[in-house]
Amino acid sequence: MNIHHLIRELREENDSKIVLLVADGLGGLPLEPGGKTELETARTPNLDACAREGVCGLSIPVLPGITPGSGPGHLGLFSYDPLEYRIGRGILEALGINFSVGARDVAVRGNFCTVNEAGLITDRRAGRPATERCVAMCRKLQQIKVPGVEVFVEPVREHRFVVVFRGDNLGDAVNDTDPQQTGHKPLEARGADSHSENTARAVNHFASEAARVLKGDVPTNMVTLRGFARYPKIDTMQEVYGLKPAALAVYPMYKGLARLVGMDVIDAGSTLNDQMDTLRKLWTQYNFFFMHYKYTDSTGEDGNFPAKVEMIERLDAEVPKIVALKPDVLIVTGDHSTPSKMRSHSWHPVPTLLRSPTCRPDAVTEFNESACLRGGLGQFQAMYLMSLAMAHAGRLGKYGA
Amino acid sequence: MNIHHLIRELREENDSKIVLLVADGLGGLPLEPGGKTELETARTPNLDACAREGVCGLSIPVLPGITPGSGPGHLGLFSYDPLEYRIGRGILEALGINFSVGARDVAVRGNFCTVNEAGLITDRRAGRPATERCVAMCRKLQQIKVPGVEVFVEPVREHRFVVVFRGDNLGDAVNDTDPQQTGHKPLEARGADSHSENTARAVNHFASEAARVLKGDVPTNMVTLRGFARYPKIDTMQEVYGLKPAALAVYPMYKGLARLVGMDVIDAGSTLNDQMDTLRKLWTQYNFFFMHYKYTDSTGEDGNFPAKVEMIERLDAEVPKIVALKPDVLIVTGDHSTPSKMRSHSWHPVPTLLRSPTCRPDAVTEFNESACLRGGLGQFQAMYLMSLAMAHAGRLGKYGA
Repeated sequence: MNIHHLIRELREENDSKIVLLVADGLGGLPLEPGGKTELETARTPNLDACAREGVCGLSIPVLPGITPGSGPGHLGLFSYDPLEYRIGRGILEALGINFSVGARDVAVRGNFCTVNEAGLITDRRAGRPATERCVAMCRKLQQIKVPGVEVFVEPVREHRFVVVFRGDNLGDAVNDTDPQQTGHKPLEARGADSHSENTARAVNHFASEAARVLKGDVPTNMVTLRGFARYPKIDTMQEVYGLKPAALAVYPMYKGLARLVGMDVIDAGSTLNDQMDTLRKLWTQYNFFFMHYKYTDSTGEDGNFPAKVEMIERLDAEVPKIVALKPDVLIVTGDHSTPSKMRSHSWHPVPTLLRSPTCRPDAVTEFNESACLRGGLGQFQAMYLMSLAMAHAGRLGKYGA
Repeated sequence: MNIHHLIRELREENDSKIVLLVADGLGGLPLEPGGKTELETARTPNLDACAREGVCGLSIPVLPGITPGSGPGHLGLFSYDPLEYRIGRGILEALGINFSVGARDVAVRGNFCTVNEAGLITDRRAGRPATERCVAMCRKLQQIKVPGVEVFVEPVREHRFVVVFRGDNLGDAVNDTDPQQTGHKPLEARGADSHSENTARAVNHFASEAARVLKGDVPTNMVTLRGFARYPKIDTMQEVYGLKPAALAVYPMYKGLARLVGMDVIDAGSTLNDQMDTLRKLWTQYNFFFMHYKYTDSTGEDGNFPAKVEMIERLDAEVPKIVALKPDVLIVTGDHSTPSKMRSHSWHPVPTLLRSPTCRPDAVTEFNESACLRGGLGQFQAMYLMSLAMAHAGRLGKYGA
């Protein structure tokens, strides 16, 4: 029995409201032995107050030692087991440019490459063209017709773009056409089952047409395709939790991930302040709010410790606006850690606080890694965050008599 | 591999004795921000001494955020995965009145209701009759004969009673006959498979006979039946753990739950003092003792914080009697939390102590929620309590060479 089945069985309706504030890549590391993490360094009086009134802990995004990408990181926070629900690269790439992928789609990431007259690849990234050229080349690819299948081509940046094949009975068990080294031709696509053979046929047609329309466009005169992925079949948060969820995110990727689990994706402007205004406006219309804050992750990925500290402090300054709305449950967490020291996502557990009138407060008085380690939520798998949220909101009945 | 398979493979015999003292609904919440829980408020010098000598932690009854009923709560403590072993309402109801249900039984909860001359229900609870009337009406129902099936009818209280159908090949995939609203006739029972059709036939026969024998007894002139449940197939604690277990409980429900997992249910009197006397008397005859204390839960459900504190202190006063018997392992825990503040069972983790010469003592010197949070057992799922008990009792061999 998985946690979703249990929640479907036990869930109850009421008027409670839940806010899930995700500071992307929140957790960090000290730069020096004996030093402090970004969150320990930041002045966060408002988050500290929430920690004092609430219960804290550390969230393990997937399993100990496993570093998640943004997809599994967020699915985990929405309590979709990230090992059960997998989102392929193509779909994530499409979500990342706000392409509205759907149930009949197979999405794939494309790369422009350079081939010589024999068709052998001489540069797998086509010399990293300017994004404008990427856009222009994609316009050419958009003219390609494939019998029986709709094809969409959208630029990402430099040599990268997205292709979406839309049709019936398209599988995604298709090999990458990128041979991963120069001196080889792009590989032919093959499907591992009959539905994937349908896709492979469309892909090979598309690739030969691409070779034709790009013929004169050295160095962007050919394409390779990687990471074929169907749109995953995911029950919505409404179906699983009985919630009416809204997503207030700024970046397309997170909007896409929210749409994937059935949230209403709201145009929330481009700043935290805009997001807070939107939250206030929508307060009566939804009962679950996912708010995404990107800059704790991007500064971490830049390896910019002081900038991450500053981004945390900016987030802290906005927290009272949420508290003023009196959510029944406020959760602040991250989808994973992004220590500036590592300049990348990491596996380290993520500081998490849950503030609710029904929580059992612990002795934690500050919101950071070392304080959360002593918190009442202990260390828990992210996939139990929503059952905790639902319980504290009074939305889960008793299991068994 | 589940924990039972592992224990069966590794278990060893010795002369050790294990006592599991369950204070029902033990965990609590502070009434006010910054306040103390019931257990933090109570003076518990004896439990504190056990905490000091032992190792503490917090037990998660089912999964984070999931509030268990008494059935799953206790199955969890006996380390039967409460998501795998499910006990239907009818069986729990029968256990609750000390009816000795067995493998050939389908039990169901009955309600007296009022029907008009057209047979339509006008009151689903028959005006909540006095329990004496319930007893008298059940006596009438006890006369009903159903071909090929033994039927037992026992009063619970007010409009509620239990019916047990005993026979071969009786399934429990049978719909409730309660239409859940007035203005309708009781529903006909239908079985979802051939064994359940056998049950449904018996049920419909019973219902039409009930209508006949109660005809003149307005307002208790008809019955509805809800929560058909077979006696679950559960391996005994003797089979799984190789233990000879005795249950010293006062309330029928907990006696029934203990019988379900194969414990010898002992008539242990009606007070804690009686239970302690019984424990002493039986000390040489068993090697596992489940002692159940109800009043920490009932006072919590009443929302009576000071009474719960007092019940905890009364329990504490009896603890030295157990310690004097020198059990190899003494565990004190609860099946779930019942915060007075919430007047109900809750999902909050339950303070747990394990005192044994083989335990690794931690720094915990008091037995309560906040102290247990710093304990050596950490937060753990209740279904691992018995493997911990068996290990500390020297009853589990090494896994693998």
